[in-house]
Amino acid sequence: MLKQLSFVVVAAAVAVACQPPEESAEQAHARMQSESAAVQPLIEARVAEFVAAWNGGDAAGVAAVYTPDAAVMPPDRPGVAGRDAIRELNAGDMAMLPGAQLAIDVVSVTANGPLAVDRGTWTLTMPGPDGAAMEMTGKYLAVWHQIDGQWYMAEDIWNNDAPMPAM
Amino acid sequence: MLKQLSFVVVAAAVAVACQPPEESAEQAHARMQSESAAVQPLIEARVAEFVAAWNGGDAAGVAAVYTPDAAVMPPDRPGVAGRDAIRELNAGDMAMLPGAQLAIDVVSVTANGPLAVDRGTWTLTMPGPDGAAMEMTGKYLAVWHQIDGQWYMAEDIWNNDAPMPAM
Repeated sequence: MLKQLSFVVVAAAVAVACQPPEESAEQAHARMQSESAAVQPLIEARVAEFVAAWNGGDAAGVAAVYTPDAAVMPPDRPGVAGRDAIRELNAGDMAMLPGAQLAIDVVSVTANGPLAVDRGTWTLTMPGPDGAAMEMTGKYLAVWHQIDGQWYMAEDIWNNDAPMPAM
Repeated sequence: MLKQLSFVVVAAAVAVACQPPEESAEQAHARMQSESAAVQPLIEARVAEFVAAWNGGDAAGVAAVYTPDAAVMPPDRPGVAGRDAIRELNAGDMAMLPGAQLAIDVVSVTANGPLAVDRGTWTLTMPGPDGAAMEMTGKYLAVWHQIDGQWYMAEDIWNNDAPMPAM
């Protein structure tokens, strides 16, 4: 009898101890802040790969930073989906803007497990019609998924800080 | 001695049983799919509130769908942050586009706990200069945070499918 009671007590102790920890909103907030800080340098490294590929005229390298079925939404044109379409979009932009150099500043990263969001600003510097350097600036929002330990952009949209000059 | 051994065995059993469940990538994917499906109608309801406020000329109602420090990134203008600036931005747009009616189509929601992303398209229908209805269309990406059980937009960016006509 005592033995059976012990068993019940132990079983109850295990059951109580093994409740999945109920995360409070405050705990979730603190955990996400810590995850976001840890993920930010990883996203920044992927953004640096993206920028290096773009500035090197490597449209396939740009597309490789996206998930296979990513949605990319450029301004003043319809969106595209998938790495092939993304490669073509970027190859077209590189051809249209010869000598253009892209810079991206990651302003904020929010991560929760394998889902992260990255917000920032971009600058495109290019030779203008008069030979002087011309600059376009804008902002972007990108959604990243972690797949097999690596981060890939799944959704990407940007726009300009001012209307695009007629070219 | 036997009693001590029992204690050690029970303690070990509790320790093993109480390992936090290690979620595999597949499990995380399945959980996020199910969470996204559950969250999508809640986000759609908030988007409907946003659209109703916009079409009713209620800029404060539009701003109330955002977090207090939300970042809003309209095309061809610099971004703004915070509900006051968001209210002013929307009041300005409503005044600039009298009679314009907004429609939003939520295409995709991805949720993981209190973080969600919503991607979709928008249409603005307004009286054109010749009296006939004029339509502008575009796409958007929005990041939502769940706070005290309610979803608020924390980051919002959109752009156009074609360059804005000069007005």
